[in-house]
Amino acid sequence: MSKKSKKLTDLNQIGEFGLIDIITQDFKMVNQSTELSIGDDAAILNYKNQKSIVSTDMLIEGVHFDLSYFPLKHLGYKAVVSSISDICAMYGITKQITVSIAVSNRFKLESIQELYSGIKLACQRYNVDLIGGDTTSSQKGLIISVTAIGCPSKLGYVTRSGSKTNDLLIVTGSLGAAYLGLQVLEREKQVFLVNPENKPDLSNYKYLVERQLKPEAKSDVIDFLFENKVKPTSMIDISDGLSSEIIHICKKSAKGCQIYEDKLPISEEAISTCKEFKLDPTVIALSGGEDYELLFTINSKDFEKIENHNELTVIGHITNENGINLITKDGKTTPITSMGWTNF
Amino acid sequence: MSKKSKKLTDLNQIGEFGLIDIITQDFKMVNQSTELSIGDDAAILNYKNQKSIVSTDMLIEGVHFDLSYFPLKHLGYKAVVSSISDICAMYGITKQITVSIAVSNRFKLESIQELYSGIKLACQRYNVDLIGGDTTSSQKGLIISVTAIGCPSKLGYVTRSGSKTNDLLIVTGSLGAAYLGLQVLEREKQVFLVNPENKPDLSNYKYLVERQLKPEAKSDVIDFLFENKVKPTSMIDISDGLSSEIIHICKKSAKGCQIYEDKLPISEEAISTCKEFKLDPTVIALSGGEDYELLFTINSKDFEKIENHNELTVIGHITNENGINLITKDGKTTPITSMGWTNF
Repeated sequence: MSKKSKKLTDLNQIGEFGLIDIITQDFKMVNQSTELSIGDDAAILNYKNQKSIVSTDMLIEGVHFDLSYFPLKHLGYKAVVSSISDICAMYGITKQITVSIAVSNRFKLESIQELYSGIKLACQRYNVDLIGGDTTSSQKGLIISVTAIGCPSKLGYVTRSGSKTNDLLIVTGSLGAAYLGLQVLEREKQVFLVNPENKPDLSNYKYLVERQLKPEAKSDVIDFLFENKVKPTSMIDISDGLSSEIIHICKKSAKGCQIYEDKLPISEEAISTCKEFKLDPTVIALSGGEDYELLFTINSKDFEKIENHNELTVIGHITNENGINLITKDGKTTPITSMGWTNF
Repeated sequence: MSKKSKKLTDLNQIGEFGLIDIITQDFKMVNQSTELSIGDDAAILNYKNQKSIVSTDMLIEGVHFDLSYFPLKHLGYKAVVSSISDICAMYGITKQITVSIAVSNRFKLESIQELYSGIKLACQRYNVDLIGGDTTSSQKGLIISVTAIGCPSKLGYVTRSGSKTNDLLIVTGSLGAAYLGLQVLEREKQVFLVNPENKPDLSNYKYLVERQLKPEAKSDVIDFLFENKVKPTSMIDISDGLSSEIIHICKKSAKGCQIYEDKLPISEEAISTCKEFKLDPTVIALSGGEDYELLFTINSKDFEKIENHNELTVIGHITNENGINLITKDGKTTPITSMGWTNF
């Protein structure tokens, strides 16, 4: 409690990535078994030539989810899926998770059981074992921390840093839907708060809401790539938004890229909902978070092995220059800046 | 939001261990690499015959620590130490940790740096690599989640369940000090709240306060046991209190035990502070938490290998009957019940 008033730094001045850089800058790795540390979707351990992948995430009520429309079972499912997605992004298969929870005294046993029924469903769906965790009380709300452990595919793991000039940039599935699902749910919540008798009609937004409330990890794409002997040169999962992730890949690989607006995969439902909300679908595809799709690069010679997969879309390519650019529908080049979302 | 009023179950009716039993009861393990799951200090993974140990803990401001007297640097140190202690309890060596934090907007960068300076100090002290984590905002207070990963000693890992009849029960260090340190700090806080000019004098309680604010993990004892080729038959770390841990070992091993009140290692400072606070030192030694000492059992033939270590105390032995008993100083037998602390 110093009486001198030192000028202190607000966390929102530096953002999440800035904070991580500052707090981790002078940690030195001392163990041989630490093969890859902070700075990718997950860390890589190497215990006597047997590699494993470790990733961890924390979800906070009121920051990452709103229980007034997020069913606890779905929340448990999503918490596990988002961790599995990080392991997928290393070209890995998730084998184990630990789940720690803290709950305030408003939570009853039956609520916790709902949460764990979703955790269990995700474990069954993805063949993952729950091996440990911690349970405690919180001062406010629900907090969930998940650590996922997996092993790399037999072709080895893939980081964010291996993309080469002329590699193709590929995304799985479609973009922006989870963000739009959240907007729909938030709108219905406001309607409900004004008039609790008003029952929300979500039938027009089924796909978008499901993408928000029950996302899936793209382990099937990892399986497909492995079976077809395609090892991506770099990979990341799209949790913060395409623009943020593409910048990570380019920076880590010391490359640039060109992506094409007219190639961005956006669902019909997403486009019509953008119209309704007066949003630009391209902006949403670039900056909407939580899609848990994969963004990866491959050598162009591998293209024919994947071109018939209807969930994979080539959206551009890696360039030798530094610029990270969007080629718009009318042929203009515009730099992509990070609109990925910050929690601070 | 059902209108029927279902009878819901309060978590404090079932306690932490009851909750864990209920929520994990129908999780089936499906991966060969999961060797040991929920129910010990840590889980054991086996990736192609290379075993690793995983443990995770969550610490919540206002539940596990009070920042009005807990310096952030010490907190970071203690969070890491408590995870390392779990790996020690498996007869393992910690190699990596992940640390996730959530902070409310009252926290500035400089506070987070303080926290990480303690995390770094613990990493250096115990040769552990920080390999990942998550940073996010919280609605209230500071939340820390640590996952520790290590490898078993070359003699293999040790669970809670291997103790045999006539094995000796041994504890490291001394008991109850961390709890008493907390009582001293809480008292000084109350004094400070009444009169902020009053500067707390902790000079008489230096050892106790240090045990609360800067505990150490007993990795040196693990090294000693390994060097002397002593593999405990069962082991646990004393985080909730001796009585709670001894019950875990006996239940998991399907044994009973006798421990001797006059053998319990209690420091002079703890005894004098008990007098001051009108507390029974035996009760405090049995139920005070957070000592991070180890409780383990060895075959009596190994006794001569450890008898000269001045940090190890034989406090009793394992019996064939179910009773978990304390033999008091006046020779009476009294059952030990769990007074280990519950957070709910």
